[in-house]
Amino acid sequence: MKTFLSDNSSAVHPKILEAIIKCNKKHEVPYGDDIYTKRAVEKFRKIFGKNVDVYFVTNDIAANVIGISSMVEPSETVICIDNSKTNKCKTLEKITKSKISYVKGENGKITIDSLKDFLRSIETEKEVKPKVVSITQATEIGTVYSLKEVRELSNFVHENGLLLHVDGGRICNAAVSLGVSLKDMIKETGVDLLSFGGTKNGMMFGEAIISFNRDLTKNLKFIIKQDMQLISKMRYVSAQFIAYLEDNLWKKNAQKSNCMAKILEADLRAIEKVEIIENVQANMIFAKLPREWIDKLRNNLYFCIVNEEKNIIRMITSFDTTIEDVNKFVTELKRLQDS
Amino acid sequence: MKTFLSDNSSAVHPKILEAIIKCNKKHEVPYGDDIYTKRAVEKFRKIFGKNVDVYFVTNDIAANVIGISSMVEPSETVICIDNSKTNKCKTLEKITKSKISYVKGENGKITIDSLKDFLRSIETEKEVKPKVVSITQATEIGTVYSLKEVRELSNFVHENGLLLHVDGGRICNAAVSLGVSLKDMIKETGVDLLSFGGTKNGMMFGEAIISFNRDLTKNLKFIIKQDMQLISKMRYVSAQFIAYLEDNLWKKNAQKSNCMAKILEADLRAIEKVEIIENVQANMIFAKLPREWIDKLRNNLYFCIVNEEKNIIRMITSFDTTIEDVNKFVTELKRLQDS
Amino acid sequence: MKTFLSDNSSAVHPKILEAIIKCNKKHEVPYGDDIYTKRAVEKFRKIFGKNVDVYFVTNDIAANVIGISSMVEPSETVICIDNSKTNKCKTLEKITKSKISYVKGENGKITIDSLKDFLRSIETEKEVKPKVVSITQATEIGTVYSLKEVRELSNFVHENGLLLHVDGGRICNAAVSLGVSLKDMIKETGVDLLSFGGTKNGMMFGEAIISFNRDLTKNLKFIIKQDMQLISKMRYVSAQFIAYLEDNLWKKNAQKSNCMAKILEADLRAIEKVEIIENVQANMIFAKLPREWIDKLRNNLYFCIVNEEKNIIRMITSFDTTIEDVNKFVTELKRLQDS
Amino acid sequence: MKTFLSDNSSAVHPKILEAIIKCNKKHEVPYGDDIYTKRAVEKFRKIFGKNVDVYFVTNDIAANVIGISSMVEPSETVICIDNSKTNKCKTLEKITKSKISYVKGENGKITIDSLKDFLRSIETEKEVKPKVVSITQATEIGTVYSLKEVRELSNFVHENGLLLHVDGGRICNAAVSLGVSLKDMIKETGVDLLSFGGTKNGMMFGEAIISFNRDLTKNLKFIIKQDMQLISKMRYVSAQFIAYLEDNLWKKNAQKSNCMAKILEADLRAIEKVEIIENVQANMIFAKLPREWIDKLRNNLYFCIVNEEKNIIRMITSFDTTIEDVNKFVTELKRLQDS
Repeated sequence: MKTFLSDNSSAVHPKILEAIIKCNKKHEVPYGDDIYTKRAVEKFRKIFGKNVDVYFVTNDIAANVIGISSMVEPSETVICIDNSKTNKCKTLEKITKSKISYVKGENGKITIDSLKDFLRSIETEKEVKPKVVSITQATEIGTVYSLKEVRELSNFVHENGLLLHVDGGRICNAAVSLGVSLKDMIKETGVDLLSFGGTKNGMMFGEAIISFNRDLTKNLKFIIKQDMQLISKMRYVSAQFIAYLEDNLWKKNAQKSNCMAKILEADLRAIEKVEIIENVQANMIFAKLPREWIDKLRNNLYFCIVNEEKNIIRMITSFDTTIEDVNKFVTELKRLQDS
Repeated sequence: MKTFLSDNSSAVHPKILEAIIKCNKKHEVPYGDDIYTKRAVEKFRKIFGKNVDVYFVTNDIAANVIGISSMVEPSETVICIDNSKTNKCKTLEKITKSKISYVKGENGKITIDSLKDFLRSIETEKEVKPKVVSITQATEIGTVYSLKEVRELSNFVHENGLLLHVDGGRICNAAVSLGVSLKDMIKETGVDLLSFGGTKNGMMFGEAIISFNRDLTKNLKFIIKQDMQLISKMRYVSAQFIAYLEDNLWKKNAQKSNCMAKILEADLRAIEKVEIIENVQANMIFAKLPREWIDKLRNNLYFCIVNEEKNIIRMITSFDTTIEDVNKFVTELKRLQDS
Repeated sequence: MKTFLSDNSSAVHPKILEAIIKCNKKHEVPYGDDIYTKRAVEKFRKIFGKNVDVYFVTNDIAANVIGISSMVEPSETVICIDNSKTNKCKTLEKITKSKISYVKGENGKITIDSLKDFLRSIETEKEVKPKVVSITQATEIGTVYSLKEVRELSNFVHENGLLLHVDGGRICNAAVSLGVSLKDMIKETGVDLLSFGGTKNGMMFGEAIISFNRDLTKNLKFIIKQDMQLISKMRYVSAQFIAYLEDNLWKKNAQKSNCMAKILEADLRAIEKVEIIENVQANMIFAKLPREWIDKLRNNLYFCIVNEEKNIIRMITSFDTTIEDVNKFVTELKRLQDS
Repeated sequence: MKTFLSDNSSAVHPKILEAIIKCNKKHEVPYGDDIYTKRAVEKFRKIFGKNVDVYFVTNDIAANVIGISSMVEPSETVICIDNSKTNKCKTLEKITKSKISYVKGENGKITIDSLKDFLRSIETEKEVKPKVVSITQATEIGTVYSLKEVRELSNFVHENGLLLHVDGGRICNAAVSLGVSLKDMIKETGVDLLSFGGTKNGMMFGEAIISFNRDLTKNLKFIIKQDMQLISKMRYVSAQFIAYLEDNLWKKNAQKSNCMAKILEADLRAIEKVEIIENVQANMIFAKLPREWIDKLRNNLYFCIVNEEKNIIRMITSFDTTIEDVNKFVTELKRLQDS
């Protein structure tokens, strides 16, 4: 069964698996001093420019927390969106001792006005010292910051002596949605550090931290070790990234899942009692369903219920979602509609 | 090239890889609620008894740190060996806020006498409150605690109101060395929590935390999430453990590497200028070499230099070490001897 | 000049100072093993019962954070009120690694309904494990929980396997407001741990942590040392507490400041353009003033502006506030009214 | 009774108490924005130069830990002496997440050779990134670094890209011992941050953190708040420092206690069975006593037993130690000698 529960539910793309199998030879120096890791880093430098530093960790929470850790001191504060709808932002709170300040957003995105309000509100306060603004691209509700929006945020952030972090767990879906290159979206807009996701888009495990400010992140490798994220048999992560970045696999996978989301959205819109409640710009769909439908389908794992009281569900498509998967779910909904 | 640098350098056993490939189908519930994880946990319960709790993390440092974290409060102390020879124990120091106290050992093992000395020394001190004794099995220098030693430590520890943790990064090598079952070595001796290693013995990534005291570790799953060790596509770890525990693969792999260590040891002992300096009981060999030999071979990755001043090197064999690998290295040494 | 900026601005009561001067003799064992500390602890036991444990720290943030630290493990969560009006609750967030969850309140108080809502909302969530509910008495907005309210909260909290903490920075003002004994308000209602404030009510420095569950807080003394709150010349804190608890000084001081708040409130209500916006039950008054009045008086330190946009100010009276202090401020306001 | 247990046992100097009494008037802005604090900071700037930043905390552990915290990131390491004799260095380990590396010393002092050895030993290691060297002046065993020694350490430390911290819990005793000014000892030698002790030398409570590198410590005030060391009624600390720095009270007090140590040392040397075991350069004396003497006197609090097995005791004199106090103790020893 394939579900819309999460792109974390998806399998591993055959090309990724093949890369793992291929590197399963002889011995390699552990902890990242191997040739696969060197090659994977080179791939990232080809994409983002040769002056970036690249580090690999095992999961997206670690990529965000450790990435941001390298930008702030414990006495400084990270600003992110108060996304009551999904509450995923909570992961950021794990950053040891750093405080998270939440600002309101629009369409899941932090706005310059909300940052201005926040900075003004703390002027007289002695305990908060902001340092990093962290945005999620694509956002937690499936919307996507435009290039202009990222650039304006980046400018504002830097003018105010702050830094810009991008939580890119679904960065490839965002790039595909905008039809731009990763470099244009991240480097050219002035982002300081990117947590680059692979797991949700066809990899087995492994995320990358891309630093555009090497001086800023000079202690990153120590933090990775200290925070228990150093992988011994690193080549099995690096080999995945090599395959992921080759032949535009990252793009093809993201195109596939974004496309499936568009098809699912269109089909859902055709069902009267289903209400789509956010712009579908990447691979996530939020919808309101009749209560009894939710109760009838809740054990089928088609979706995740994000708000029991308001009957809101979330569906996420993956690179391996098929037309048949979409049809099967839509057919069930239609049957409920007709009954 | 295959080296004796570390068992972390080894490849992944074909049966493990096969298990990963086999589970690469459709979708699974992420974060451990999948059928592979249920099955892997059952496998562990068959080995250790049905009352154990089992958790998976990505690497051995995490298995130790998180396992111990679940046993101590930040104001309590962990006692482990002061192993100046390898200094690996340092990883334990990462436990947030908990203090590590070091005691002297013999043959790499903590003795009851050293624990008595330590407990006596802190009687008047107000700042140290011991809670956990952590031993490494096999030890950092390749020796192995006997069943009697583990049982006596366990009794002493419990009589003094403490808990016993086993760092089992090479637990399978130890069991094979002693010719005992995992259950006899760990559960029957009264160990409270075991960090069970797989990566060094043929797995790709993934270690298990086995708790024999469920009440003690009731918060473990929250700690795993909080400490960034929750794996989204968990099935790819669980499937490895299923294969690892099936058909005694863990035992066969450990037998292979222990056996290769014995052969390498015998060959080294036949070379006059090489001095074996610790008992070889598992898959590690420590030896003293002439300075110029070390310098000539240091870039070949045959070994790891653990003490530059005393010319001490460490060699570790793996499940995939071959007679040819041993011969190649021994031949080089003999050539140096003869020249 | 005496202000209504904060009761932290007040001086030290002469009896407290006298107690300090009296204990300034010869030498005493440092770090709390002295006779003054023993005597102060006895005083607390006379008030709260002989089965309480008592610890002294230097300030109210420490009394709250360390008190709560001794009740939770890092993976557990503390529930407190989301008081957007004053935002003082933030101090709790400093508890290392523990997460704070906020619930809505009424009149500055946590309600059972809000706790029920919260507990229901996390049923399906895997990452939050609540352990402690922390209430502030008197509250951050100057209201006071009734005995019935505390008892009902205590019962609800315990029925749900949680613990109840009271942030008592202004506990004496609350007791005086209710006309009850400290024991009736705290011990008889089932509170598990009280952070008992002295500094705001006439002491120089020093707060107490009172544990009604010794087993729960067995590591408290280690945490105090570890968190840098162990005072070397402890007698100078203990002597203050002896005087504070003798001859009902704590009560007299709180009566004085509560009474001054009532007088100030009455005078303010008589000024047409001033709007009192919370119940004045202890020693705090919140009011809305015309914008230009605030701007004219803002540098005089009469009050603290808590909301610049809504023109809300806060005034706090102290044990050493006089009728003249009140009159001086009210006269200024009247002059502004008339001009 | 006055003892040699610790200078933390001593009372408060009358001039300090007087300063506290004098400032007990009206209201003051809390948390350090008062005129006493401004004046105290000015006093420090007169001593150390106008470009220093000054912060007040409540105790010496906090002064060290918070001072060092402001110099290192969690991934960096602090180097201090491995003083098995007193083990006081442990307090440094409380620095959240930072690792402490210990080096051997001579006469209680870190040497450049020991630093060189250490830096060489970690060249190949990936996990340790040194940042701060912390020395204690006067040392834990009562010796004093010469100006030349501090200057050479400072040069070496800076040449290696590190920073120099001075734990100055007994800095005044050291300055008096060397006959130099505080500025010459600390600022002119290139120290980066000084934890300046007052409590042990006649103050009631309160220590200062003096930063000679304002850019380095720009977050210090946030760390103080975050680490629960912000004092609300700050004026009662600041007023003490004003008195302490006026009329050379710090110097007179230190002269008194150093002088008493010299007298006690001379008297002890005259007793055959007493062996002085460290150079007495400040106000601490370490001596070896016959076992039965220790047992007979152990409850009299004359001294602290630092090594039960080797029969080593420590005596510390204070500003309020008198000739009579010395005589009383020496007489007892002589009686034991003669019996």
